[in-house]
Amino acid sequence: MGFDFTVYKGSKDGKVVKSTTHKGDLNGDQVLVKVTHSGVCYTDVHYLHADMVLGHEGVGIVQKIGPDVKELKAGDAVGWSYEHDCCGRCNRCLSGWESMCDERKMYGSADFDQGSCATHAIWREAFLFKLPPTLRNEDAAPLMCAGSTVFNALYLANVTPTSRVGIVGVGGLGHLAIQFAAKMGCETVVFSGTESKKADAMKLGATEFYATKGVTSLDIGKPVDHLIVTTSRQPDWNLYVGLMAPCGSISPVSVSQENLTLPYMPLLENTLRIQGGITCARKLQRQMLDFAALHGIKPINVLYPFNLDGIERCLKTLIDGKMKYRGVLVAED
Amino acid sequence: MGFDFTVYKGSKDGKVVKSTTHKGDLNGDQVLVKVTHSGVCYTDVHYLHADMVLGHEGVGIVQKIGPDVKELKAGDAVGWSYEHDCCGRCNRCLSGWESMCDERKMYGSADFDQGSCATHAIWREAFLFKLPPTLRNEDAAPLMCAGSTVFNALYLANVTPTSRVGIVGVGGLGHLAIQFAAKMGCETVVFSGTESKKADAMKLGATEFYATKGVTSLDIGKPVDHLIVTTSRQPDWNLYVGLMAPCGSISPVSVSQENLTLPYMPLLENTLRIQGGITCARKLQRQMLDFAALHGIKPINVLYPFNLDGIERCLKTLIDGKMKYRGVLVAED
Repeated sequence: MGFDFTVYKGSKDGKVVKSTTHKGDLNGDQVLVKVTHSGVCYTDVHYLHADMVLGHEGVGIVQKIGPDVKELKAGDAVGWSYEHDCCGRCNRCLSGWESMCDERKMYGSADFDQGSCATHAIWREAFLFKLPPTLRNEDAAPLMCAGSTVFNALYLANVTPTSRVGIVGVGGLGHLAIQFAAKMGCETVVFSGTESKKADAMKLGATEFYATKGVTSLDIGKPVDHLIVTTSRQPDWNLYVGLMAPCGSISPVSVSQENLTLPYMPLLENTLRIQGGITCARKLQRQMLDFAALHGIKPINVLYPFNLDGIERCLKTLIDGKMKYRGVLVAED
Repeated sequence: MGFDFTVYKGSKDGKVVKSTTHKGDLNGDQVLVKVTHSGVCYTDVHYLHADMVLGHEGVGIVQKIGPDVKELKAGDAVGWSYEHDCCGRCNRCLSGWESMCDERKMYGSADFDQGSCATHAIWREAFLFKLPPTLRNEDAAPLMCAGSTVFNALYLANVTPTSRVGIVGVGGLGHLAIQFAAKMGCETVVFSGTESKKADAMKLGATEFYATKGVTSLDIGKPVDHLIVTTSRQPDWNLYVGLMAPCGSISPVSVSQENLTLPYMPLLENTLRIQGGITCARKLQRQMLDFAALHGIKPINVLYPFNLDGIERCLKTLIDGKMKYRGVLVAED
């Protein structure tokens, strides 16, 4: 008995492979979800060589519920991300930071025998987010990680409506960060390599735009209070530290295996803060989805069919830096 | 007319020189203070080659007041630090961060024709702190910068009584940080090169002590929520990043001309914060002095006579790393 479903995994040679995961019958508050959409994040590129199921921006429809499920029912639209699996007992879980649970499975392991790059997945009800009714599945998928990451960064930075917020990079994360900051009422100052994304950035809510390629110093007039750095590589920090208002914060949000190297004294002299973070804790994730629904915040998606060819093409576009702005896989039936 | 007083300055060849500063009659809310004590901070070592008056941990007695002075009167004991001179108009001043005033004079310039390394100084009333009656001048001097810096760090870190606080380094700053954290009710975990300062650290309120010299990894059981790094050089950050609890903060407080280089991913994965800062804003400075007075927090001082020989001997002990724990110059009359 139980369930078999199709999954797409990384592999030693970096090729995506199609496989099957078997799960037993639904226990406790487990929920079987049929995946309708899966956003593709740069983190998936980092784990292409790992024997794990890819995808952590899942959205789908509840198909079947376990005996202890309280609220969800068949037909509900839900979203999820890996990170929200947690033990519920450790200090991190108890303080609302389930996304940093002591027992959290880490990426890159074969433990990940399911993910959103699949036809189905089984998750505990407590870690599935019922989508607000006005949010389309297709638009919700990239919010589950990209949206969550930048919303969490704005939250941890203590951004308020009167803040002047800088967003570095206009990609999967950046194009959502611009919308969130703008809808929070902030002056939203965007930094991007060239002018090519300026029109899009302004349409998304930016109030200023600066091209940074080849530039060794920037004059942006009034300094920014908070800087959210979404580029897939760390930027030249020297370019940005001087733009910060006193008591400002810098939040790098992308995965990087290199050290963080910053000029030291400006941090002290200007009471600057470097704030790390990943995706939202569960309560904030719900607030993020509600905020997005309320304000019509949604990703600009490029859709791909949910098969090996679609996945490979999506990943290639992402790796080539040509995605405008988020690749989303769409289930074929 | 006006006033002439003796000052001690840095010079091109790094020798302390005795000089005279002339100031005009007292205007507005200016106050003439006779210096009784001056704490000696490692920042003074950094500016030994600058043509400026040394000393920014001043304590003294009001001798004469200008026409607009409202509260202070002759005979009052007051303390001060350079950083609190400000314009009162810029955004930083308006938001309570006078210590980061746009027009703040920076160290290392000949603008500093007065300081606490002198017989007298003239400051605006608004930037002098009347000492709580139970605080002795001698004990108050090192609080003006060293105490202020670590109290500000604890404040910016959002330390609460249930926090587990790590203090790296037991020197002029560290030995005050231990007392503040302990009196705030915190578990206070001290890191120092060798065991030589262990007994002092425990007496000052530490609950745990770890020697770090030659150590490549530390096992401290429960991680720390906040880490205040007071060593005069940046430590091996790899040793400490792994000790941090999720959502913890790391606060470097010493002057360093090197870059800050840290492992990057743990910041993100554990939602860590690097928090820069210098001395307290004015309101917090007052609260720090009251807190110290209430709890009997005071530096362990080594006293030197306030003359060229005393200053040179004090600086040498500091540079040799042998000060236990703060050098204070005491006026001779």
